[in-house]
Amino acid sequence: MPELGIGIDLGGTKILTGLMTLDGEILKRRLIPTEAGTQVPAVIIDRMADSVRELMAEAGQAQKIMGLACAAPGPITYPHGVIMDSPNLGWQQVRLKHELEKRLDQKVIVGKDTDLAALGEYYFGQGCQYEYLLYITVSTGIGGGIIADGKIYHGTRGGAGEFGHMVVNPSGYYCFCGRRGCLEAQASGTAIAKMAGFMMTGADKGWQNHGGQAVTAREVGTAARQGNKVARRILANVVADLGSGIANLVHIFNPQIVVLGGGVMQGLQDIILKPLRERVMDEVFPLHGAGLQIELTSLGADIGLYGCLAAIIQEQDQNTNL
Amino acid sequence: MPELGIGIDLGGTKILTGLMTLDGEILKRRLIPTEAGTQVPAVIIDRMADSVRELMAEAGQAQKIMGLACAAPGPITYPHGVIMDSPNLGWQQVRLKHELEKRLDQKVIVGKDTDLAALGEYYFGQGCQYEYLLYITVSTGIGGGIIADGKIYHGTRGGAGEFGHMVVNPSGYYCFCGRRGCLEAQASGTAIAKMAGFMMTGADKGWQNHGGQAVTAREVGTAARQGNKVARRILANVVADLGSGIANLVHIFNPQIVVLGGGVMQGLQDIILKPLRERVMDEVFPLHGAGLQIELTSLGADIGLYGCLAAIIQEQDQNTNL
Repeated sequence: MPELGIGIDLGGTKILTGLMTLDGEILKRRLIPTEAGTQVPAVIIDRMADSVRELMAEAGQAQKIMGLACAAPGPITYPHGVIMDSPNLGWQQVRLKHELEKRLDQKVIVGKDTDLAALGEYYFGQGCQYEYLLYITVSTGIGGGIIADGKIYHGTRGGAGEFGHMVVNPSGYYCFCGRRGCLEAQASGTAIAKMAGFMMTGADKGWQNHGGQAVTAREVGTAARQGNKVARRILANVVADLGSGIANLVHIFNPQIVVLGGGVMQGLQDIILKPLRERVMDEVFPLHGAGLQIELTSLGADIGLYGCLAAIIQEQDQNTNL
Repeated sequence: MPELGIGIDLGGTKILTGLMTLDGEILKRRLIPTEAGTQVPAVIIDRMADSVRELMAEAGQAQKIMGLACAAPGPITYPHGVIMDSPNLGWQQVRLKHELEKRLDQKVIVGKDTDLAALGEYYFGQGCQYEYLLYITVSTGIGGGIIADGKIYHGTRGGAGEFGHMVVNPSGYYCFCGRRGCLEAQASGTAIAKMAGFMMTGADKGWQNHGGQAVTAREVGTAARQGNKVARRILANVVADLGSGIANLVHIFNPQIVVLGGGVMQGLQDIILKPLRERVMDEVFPLHGAGLQIELTSLGADIGLYGCLAAIIQEQDQNTNL
């Protein structure tokens, strides 16, 4: 009987559910909008459970579901899976693990999306040969996950890996968290858009007219590729701050590989990955730089599902070894 | 037969060797100068081995030495114990573990001083009830050690825990490592002395005359206690940068306790510990701040010996469990 796993990737805008073989083949996917702005958590969790049941029905009786896992935005406690105060979802104190298990009547592994992404990389991605791995996502925000000795490093209550809230410049931009110059406030997609907004009110208005619309990180990338100097300078700032932040993390963790993911990183990789690598290698000690890999994720938008699958497999292996 | 361990704490200025019971009682100590400036590594390692032999002789035949361990300044590789390029000792590529084992004809656990200090805290100090602990030393430099799940987190080659080389202010002071605004360049004893040097050439020359001698961190502390405004401002800067750096680490690791040690921290604790605690608690997320302890080490100058003893005990326990 083929062994399968089901993963749920709960995002701020959409929920991706997947039926997968334990080898990492994604057999079926379901994608529904999250609608966190209009629906209460209970309704959204109902829909997540419905998606899982649909995938189970499609799997049929001939195949065995070995486990369920869900990746959710942080901050989320570990191991209890309580979403604390999520800026992405607007949820507060939602017992996601408990609510999913109640609806599905079986155990659901619930983890922080970036922690599971890191584990997915370790099992299926760029990091699969490295026991000491950092995963950093650059998207609307910046977050991370830590693999130490082949396992997620959760910290005491699941809060580890908040790389976006490391201050890299105390004279930098104000962050929603109340500090100033957090990596997230300096180098996320939101930060890039904000910098473009500031700088376009200045002398350079060289790139496309937005009719009053805010410029996005993607447009800054396009303008930079076309040689626009302001856009290039914005991305140079991002490389400087992100490079400095990653170099800090390399000194703190001495990893074998840093895997980069997230929409902004993937969308801008052709312009920023090379200078970012150079910046990090230039800043770290020889002991830390020797053999260090800095790579883009190869798992793309499915990284959350792969993370869920990796968590299911790791739990299986642990139970087998007991 | 009582079970004993021998620890060697190799520092930049002195070498402390201790004979200890596995319960943490220090029975005998030997203290010799390091003389790294005038003696080659081989001679210094000879003397370390001599100290160990003397302690063994004092222990006599009636007591069993369960293990030997040595704490050395980083960067030092793990598990091979090679001192890479130590600014404290001026040593380069010294195979300390190999050289000690050759001389003593038995296994010697060799670790980075700050890693072993963290383990010593976990076994014998403030952190003894916490599985997730960070140790930070503020001395002439700034370094650290990470305890995760009750064990030292070494990273891939032993380089983890270089908290002093996290940039906290890219417009800050130049660091010997080539970056700018490293925590060590902003808040170590050396940094405090440097700031005093800069600021005393200005309007305020209120505190004692040095006859051209450089001001030390200790003197800045004394002046601050006497109400000197420049000295107080220097220490306020140190609290700001150290507090910000510790808050970064709390977001990255989500520890239960941060233990502070090192000569500068211990010497200035009456003035800086309280504002430092307030600063960190003010900057961290509720998830990370809940229950977080920030404490001064209770092991004082013996922390290196306790770290060695903890490493000996942990290895014993692991061997017993196999």
